[in-house]
Amino acid sequence: MPGRHSRKPSDSTPHQLADFKVGVDNVIFSVDTEQNRLLVLLVMRDNDPYLGYWSLPGTLVRQGESLEDAAYRVLSEKIRVNNLYLEQLYTFGGPQRDPREAPNRYGVRYLSVSYFALVRLADAELIADGVSGIAWYPMNQLPDLAFDHQEILQYGYRRLRNKLEYSPIAFEVLPELFTLGDLYQLYTTVLGENFSDYSNFRSRLLKLGFLADTGIKVSRGAGRPASLYRFDADAFAPLKDKPLVFI
Amino acid sequence: MPGRHSRKPSDSTPHQLADFKVGVDNVIFSVDTEQNRLLVLLVMRDNDPYLGYWSLPGTLVRQGESLEDAAYRVLSEKIRVNNLYLEQLYTFGGPQRDPREAPNRYGVRYLSVSYFALVRLADAELIADGVSGIAWYPMNQLPDLAFDHQEILQYGYRRLRNKLEYSPIAFEVLPELFTLGDLYQLYTTVLGENFSDYSNFRSRLLKLGFLADTGIKVSRGAGRPASLYRFDADAFAPLKDKPLVFI
Repeated sequence: MPGRHSRKPSDSTPHQLADFKVGVDNVIFSVDTEQNRLLVLLVMRDNDPYLGYWSLPGTLVRQGESLEDAAYRVLSEKIRVNNLYLEQLYTFGGPQRDPREAPNRYGVRYLSVSYFALVRLADAELIADGVSGIAWYPMNQLPDLAFDHQEILQYGYRRLRNKLEYSPIAFEVLPELFTLGDLYQLYTTVLGENFSDYSNFRSRLLKLGFLADTGIKVSRGAGRPASLYRFDADAFAPLKDKPLVFI
Repeated sequence: MPGRHSRKPSDSTPHQLADFKVGVDNVIFSVDTEQNRLLVLLVMRDNDPYLGYWSLPGTLVRQGESLEDAAYRVLSEKIRVNNLYLEQLYTFGGPQRDPREAPNRYGVRYLSVSYFALVRLADAELIADGVSGIAWYPMNQLPDLAFDHQEILQYGYRRLRNKLEYSPIAFEVLPELFTLGDLYQLYTTVLGENFSDYSNFRSRLLKLGFLADTGIKVSRGAGRPASLYRFDADAFAPLKDKPLVFI
């Protein structure tokens, strides 16, 4: 192969191109709307390096395979879920991000292209076949993660928070019918307690015009019965490509 | 090297990992505010493949070099500019995106991590040393581009349009003092004629509170003298992490 030499990386010249394997790592969030917990899908590694550590579900890209195909392939082995839509997040590719890059190992760098999705918990079934461990981990009880997965996860968390502010991603995890209190609770679960007070949140969302009151009332514990709403995708359609913020 | 075989890619098994070289490609925009043209930095290739074609300024990542360092390195060879801030755009890595991937060539895939920046035209000086060609190309007169660079460029163009809607990126390319008409013209140059009418644009921007009237008036051709404004970074600071839209 032109440009490829048998020198060890440790005595490389500055102009020698790096050789890479390319991985994909998926940051898959869900929300436990009953217990108000933000969850992330983690798998336990059953290989070195980081044997026994929790990690984002990922894989290395195979010959002839696109990045997206690799990301969907590894997820299809971990969860069964309808309408999974992965969005590319960020590419992490600095030297020394993977211990397999140590000069006395294989001399190849590992780059990670990360992907992001938010799935409805009730629709996602974990597949535990042939893995050491798989879990929906609460974001506030994370274990130490393998590689730089903590950094990738935090990047995904920022994307999730941003998306709640300007896209209807919340309705992908809420049940079809929900109260405005349920919606507020979901935002609070992801964004924290003080992101907005309830009455501002309520009036802002209703003004945007894509929440349809079904006329059905439900009682949730104490307090007056609350109206059930649904997300009106038709009413949202003309807003889709407009800049707007929800909160 | 473990897992590496001498088979040609054409008879690869499905589980054989792909080998990659990783490139960075930069989408660098500027705006000619005098002639109201959106510009993109292109360089002419002086090597196969696509010899003689225009392309985004890019390079391949070297051993020990981070992705960002590679992106800044190639730009420092093409333009002199103050405070260049590159933002990662997207990673393009499908098979067959580069003719060098043909099975009877080197058997290595080429992945491109793209970066984005907007620079002030007056502050950016092109460096023509040792290149076949370098140009600020008007976006409405683009030539055929090498590889999938047209796709990467269009992705960058969408990012630029989005950023104008929710971030103060316009003030990175306008002169320090500008009229609201200048600002409107810049938005029109990038977003097209009908993105908003002038009076809505004007009142919306003024209401956000980060445009400071300097009290200085200028005459631009016919019409009443217009006030010169400047971007007030201090007034913008508390808005920085809030969701907001400018137009």
